[in-house]
Amino acid sequence: MVSFENDYNTGAHPEVLRRLLETNLEPQTGYGADKWCASAAEKIRLACQSPEADVEFSAGGTQTNAVVISSLLRDWEGVIAVETGHVAAHEAGAIEYTGHKVLTLPQHEGKLAPSELEAFLTAFYADANREHMVWPGMVYLSHPTEFGTLYSKAELAAIRAICLRYGLKLYLDGARLACGLLCASAELTLPDLAELCDVFYIGGTKCGALCGEAVVFPRHGRPAHFTNTVKKRGALLAKGRLLGVQFDALFTDGLYFRIGKHESDMAEKLKALFKERGIPLWLDSPTNQQFVELEDGKIEKLKEKVAFSFWEKTDETHTVIRFVTGWSTTEEDLATLAAALDELK
Amino acid sequence: MVSFENDYNTGAHPEVLRRLLETNLEPQTGYGADKWCASAAEKIRLACQSPEADVEFSAGGTQTNAVVISSLLRDWEGVIAVETGHVAAHEAGAIEYTGHKVLTLPQHEGKLAPSELEAFLTAFYADANREHMVWPGMVYLSHPTEFGTLYSKAELAAIRAICLRYGLKLYLDGARLACGLLCASAELTLPDLAELCDVFYIGGTKCGALCGEAVVFPRHGRPAHFTNTVKKRGALLAKGRLLGVQFDALFTDGLYFRIGKHESDMAEKLKALFKERGIPLWLDSPTNQQFVELEDGKIEKLKEKVAFSFWEKTDETHTVIRFVTGWSTTEEDLATLAAALDELK
Amino acid sequence: MVSFENDYNTGAHPEVLRRLLETNLEPQTGYGADKWCASAAEKIRLACQSPEADVEFSAGGTQTNAVVISSLLRDWEGVIAVETGHVAAHEAGAIEYTGHKVLTLPQHEGKLAPSELEAFLTAFYADANREHMVWPGMVYLSHPTEFGTLYSKAELAAIRAICLRYGLKLYLDGARLACGLLCASAELTLPDLAELCDVFYIGGTKCGALCGEAVVFPRHGRPAHFTNTVKKRGALLAKGRLLGVQFDALFTDGLYFRIGKHESDMAEKLKALFKERGIPLWLDSPTNQQFVELEDGKIEKLKEKVAFSFWEKTDETHTVIRFVTGWSTTEEDLATLAAALDELK
Amino acid sequence: MVSFENDYNTGAHPEVLRRLLETNLEPQTGYGADKWCASAAEKIRLACQSPEADVEFSAGGTQTNAVVISSLLRDWEGVIAVETGHVAAHEAGAIEYTGHKVLTLPQHEGKLAPSELEAFLTAFYADANREHMVWPGMVYLSHPTEFGTLYSKAELAAIRAICLRYGLKLYLDGARLACGLLCASAELTLPDLAELCDVFYIGGTKCGALCGEAVVFPRHGRPAHFTNTVKKRGALLAKGRLLGVQFDALFTDGLYFRIGKHESDMAEKLKALFKERGIPLWLDSPTNQQFVELEDGKIEKLKEKVAFSFWEKTDETHTVIRFVTGWSTTEEDLATLAAALDELK
Repeated sequence: MVSFENDYNTGAHPEVLRRLLETNLEPQTGYGADKWCASAAEKIRLACQSPEADVEFSAGGTQTNAVVISSLLRDWEGVIAVETGHVAAHEAGAIEYTGHKVLTLPQHEGKLAPSELEAFLTAFYADANREHMVWPGMVYLSHPTEFGTLYSKAELAAIRAICLRYGLKLYLDGARLACGLLCASAELTLPDLAELCDVFYIGGTKCGALCGEAVVFPRHGRPAHFTNTVKKRGALLAKGRLLGVQFDALFTDGLYFRIGKHESDMAEKLKALFKERGIPLWLDSPTNQQFVELEDGKIEKLKEKVAFSFWEKTDETHTVIRFVTGWSTTEEDLATLAAALDELK
Repeated sequence: MVSFENDYNTGAHPEVLRRLLETNLEPQTGYGADKWCASAAEKIRLACQSPEADVEFSAGGTQTNAVVISSLLRDWEGVIAVETGHVAAHEAGAIEYTGHKVLTLPQHEGKLAPSELEAFLTAFYADANREHMVWPGMVYLSHPTEFGTLYSKAELAAIRAICLRYGLKLYLDGARLACGLLCASAELTLPDLAELCDVFYIGGTKCGALCGEAVVFPRHGRPAHFTNTVKKRGALLAKGRLLGVQFDALFTDGLYFRIGKHESDMAEKLKALFKERGIPLWLDSPTNQQFVELEDGKIEKLKEKVAFSFWEKTDETHTVIRFVTGWSTTEEDLATLAAALDELK
Repeated sequence: MVSFENDYNTGAHPEVLRRLLETNLEPQTGYGADKWCASAAEKIRLACQSPEADVEFSAGGTQTNAVVISSLLRDWEGVIAVETGHVAAHEAGAIEYTGHKVLTLPQHEGKLAPSELEAFLTAFYADANREHMVWPGMVYLSHPTEFGTLYSKAELAAIRAICLRYGLKLYLDGARLACGLLCASAELTLPDLAELCDVFYIGGTKCGALCGEAVVFPRHGRPAHFTNTVKKRGALLAKGRLLGVQFDALFTDGLYFRIGKHESDMAEKLKALFKERGIPLWLDSPTNQQFVELEDGKIEKLKEKVAFSFWEKTDETHTVIRFVTGWSTTEEDLATLAAALDELK
Repeated sequence: MVSFENDYNTGAHPEVLRRLLETNLEPQTGYGADKWCASAAEKIRLACQSPEADVEFSAGGTQTNAVVISSLLRDWEGVIAVETGHVAAHEAGAIEYTGHKVLTLPQHEGKLAPSELEAFLTAFYADANREHMVWPGMVYLSHPTEFGTLYSKAELAAIRAICLRYGLKLYLDGARLACGLLCASAELTLPDLAELCDVFYIGGTKCGALCGEAVVFPRHGRPAHFTNTVKKRGALLAKGRLLGVQFDALFTDGLYFRIGKHESDMAEKLKALFKERGIPLWLDSPTNQQFVELEDGKIEKLKEKVAFSFWEKTDETHTVIRFVTGWSTTEEDLATLAAALDELK
């Protein structure tokens, strides 16, 4: 069955696998001190135009979020996120497990409004009880968001300015960054992120790798004794090469960007395919997650031929469903979907 | 340069890689709910002759230890380990990070003495202050130990009996289990472990996988909501298939055992090679970690041609060094080492 | 200066102090195993008509909340509270420090709406992603709430019924319970709380004690090894008698209820005093916290003679301020306040 | 029955209680911002000859240890203590609950040997695996120790010098400091502690207070946002005055030192009383904890008339028991004990 269930339902991009095979027998030092981690880090620094960046690799997204947030927050601080932010909603309390609160603000198609961030901070610093409260120490953004939306450059700069004014760190979760960088309406580039964020991660798992995320700390921003911090949280892989080789492949000959472009192109075709059939998009996502609302009866029929995921019920007889394109999505997959949609009429 | 530095310095066994390639394009559900995790779990249940076992997969050893120990201990309990146990010495405080103490006992070539365990427990339960102390809730063993040594079946049964008497869980860390099962003097089998332990893990990272460990909870012993627990600790991989496919390969056609046999055979040849040259073994390890004591001058010379790891200084001019065989160790590697040793005379 | 700043700004009720003096030289076992803790527990069981209740003593409110919540939640669970609930807003992240999330719902004058609780739970159990989310394991209520309001018996019974249906524990924070039990519109009694809650605490600190809260676990509901749990969280006093003697005094000859009645009577007079002067109450609190909105200029003048606390700005020129009565509030205090208010005109 | 069970089995010194009564009706700001906390802090600074010291108050010893240690250690660090140190042995894992390991070294009558500390640190910094280990970040000492013994000035200076050399903080637990400062062989003074330690606490609970310890951070060494840190750990008392008033009393007219002198004088008489009867002291403690070994039969008889505590069995028929003097120990208590001992012959 053709699947648009998510962007992690197949393995790795063939070029990534090929590099794993080629390097398989090379003896390499463990725990991320191998030459491929070093090489990948250097290529990422170049792509970010950030020669002073520290680059580290981690196995998965929630792990990365927990390690980064807990190693950068101070004892009395929490992290601000919108209520649908991954760290707030779908990490099973991983941030709280590190002893820190997630301070939630409203979301707007998954995004944080700079004005609401500022209002929150103003109110906090005006509150006489703030020694009995969790101090805001960091802003967490996902880009693309959980709804596939993107921050404009002006929006991220506005958030950055607020963070600087209030002494907050700015962290961007780029689980689906490849597509976020390469879609038609993308404004933000890797160098922009390196300039505007204190730390961000370049997602691998959902962008063509078997597993792995690359954490970038611009301006030598890595916390002291970071290897120790990672180990203490159970997040240090013995064969760190697994992450190094993959990211080296992803950042060779623009593979990461090619994957992002592919995901984005497939998503545009997906959107067109819905529009042509008069199926309204639930929101206007510019990236590889697309949401449409359908009658429940049609959904039942459609899922016999196509895999997708349920998002939310909108009324008694309608549901929003999500379609995601990935590195392995093909024109044939789209054609199969088109045919299945045609059968719904 | 030929390397005996450790058993995680090359990639994965070719059969493991081949299976990753073959399954790469199959759409699979994420987070460990894929068919390969199910298939691997079933093969492991068969190998353990434990049809009621729950089997889960995790990315690395410290992560596995932290997840298993913290999910099984109750609030007031700690885990007993020997002072050289991995959880006590080399996990950067990962167990304490979960809020639980590691209670240490003396080690004997890396092993826990049943009599000392019993004496500790007797003293604990006789102590009037025990409500102000950490209660022993689990025994952690590594097998092979950090010194390459093995428990006999009688020893493990004795520890099990003590655990049952005092209501402790028994957990066995099998990071290097393949070799521990297949070396000449091995007594304990997978079915034995399933019978005697409450939980144990079958190491993949150091036994031919790119990453991954298989946690076995005999007798449906998996803690409730385990996926949630794993997620909360940042240890859930989106592409859980990566672990499932690898363990499915390792438990197809006896690959895991063949790897263990190979590591063991290579280790025996390694031992012979030292003995033939009059280089005494520091201790009599039956598995793939071998320790020899050499003069520092010779070590300096040797390391120009061979990679190994330092263990400890024994006096001003001597040091114990460690040689490890792995799935990728070859006869040629041994020959190169032999030649290098011959040059030391 | 006369103070209505809060209900913990003076020491202990004279009868409490007298009992501390009388018992001062008696040798008593430490850590809560003394005869006064036992006696106080028995008197509390009687007052609750709950012979099977376990009663424990703790030094302060946040400590009690952290100990109770973290010892009753399971690994994968969080606690539900309204967004203004003390555990959500004013405990500096103490609950998250124990590794558990506070799941927030809207507040209605400080109260949780049963219908919103039910809707939240229904949505949670319908969510396919719930293994990636924090499970609701407990409901936290404060009674009186942070706004001085009270739950009716029907409301608490409705919440209890929902908790039973979904397997949640019900916990009630009674930091200001004395007044909450004795004010004119109070419906809920100690026996009601013992019947409807899984655990609640009877506040001492804000109800006439130097420090201390009494935690009641009806139906032998105390977690196993509770002394150990308390000790592990740094919350076990060596001279546990300090808490036992005080609660024994508070539950002798109805002192606790007399204090609650006094606080309530003083609050009613306080309300009358504002109403007589045409100063509107910001909300209708039936207990010892009263809120009024005043022009900022008047507030500046008033605070020269009377201590109170700031609550929140309502517009550019107005602010809500809070007045609290306590065990030590006198008719003279009220007369002084009345005179100061008269001068504002 | 006369009791030598411990030094926290009676209430507070009468002068402490008198001050609580005198100040009872004064309105004071909560959470430690009252005038008595300020006054007590100032008196402690004077007694320590440390005008730049920050002084904070906490309710109990384990709480103080957990707050101080966890707020000063960095993420990757643990605290060094001897194996019988209170934080290592008798706090139910309170330090580990904050996510930090206690690194244990051997004890010598409860004391840490500077040479063993240095050897441990030398080995740690020579260990190539130290990024996989817990880094030593602090040394914890108790003074008097759990065996009643004291550090000499030279010993503490030697430990301080090692700490400076290796960048470790030095923390001294003075739960029984009053007696430790005033006994015959005492060398260390409060100004010495302020000079040599990074933080220490002056015990109140075991030295005449109802509860409370005063934490001294010389050289403005208090961690940032300490109130928040304390609140987050559930350790902030609403009526902070309870601690302020008591310590103000203890540091008025030398009361704290008078209590220490009394405990010490009583302990000397206690020792004499055993010696006169040929009962050997198990070790030579200079402070208020005294240990003697007796036949089990005699212990059974003695405990009918005198309360004391069991320490450890030494052989089948003998046990070490502990006698402790406190602020409330009288000459009559000693006479009663003497008579009871005479009856054992």
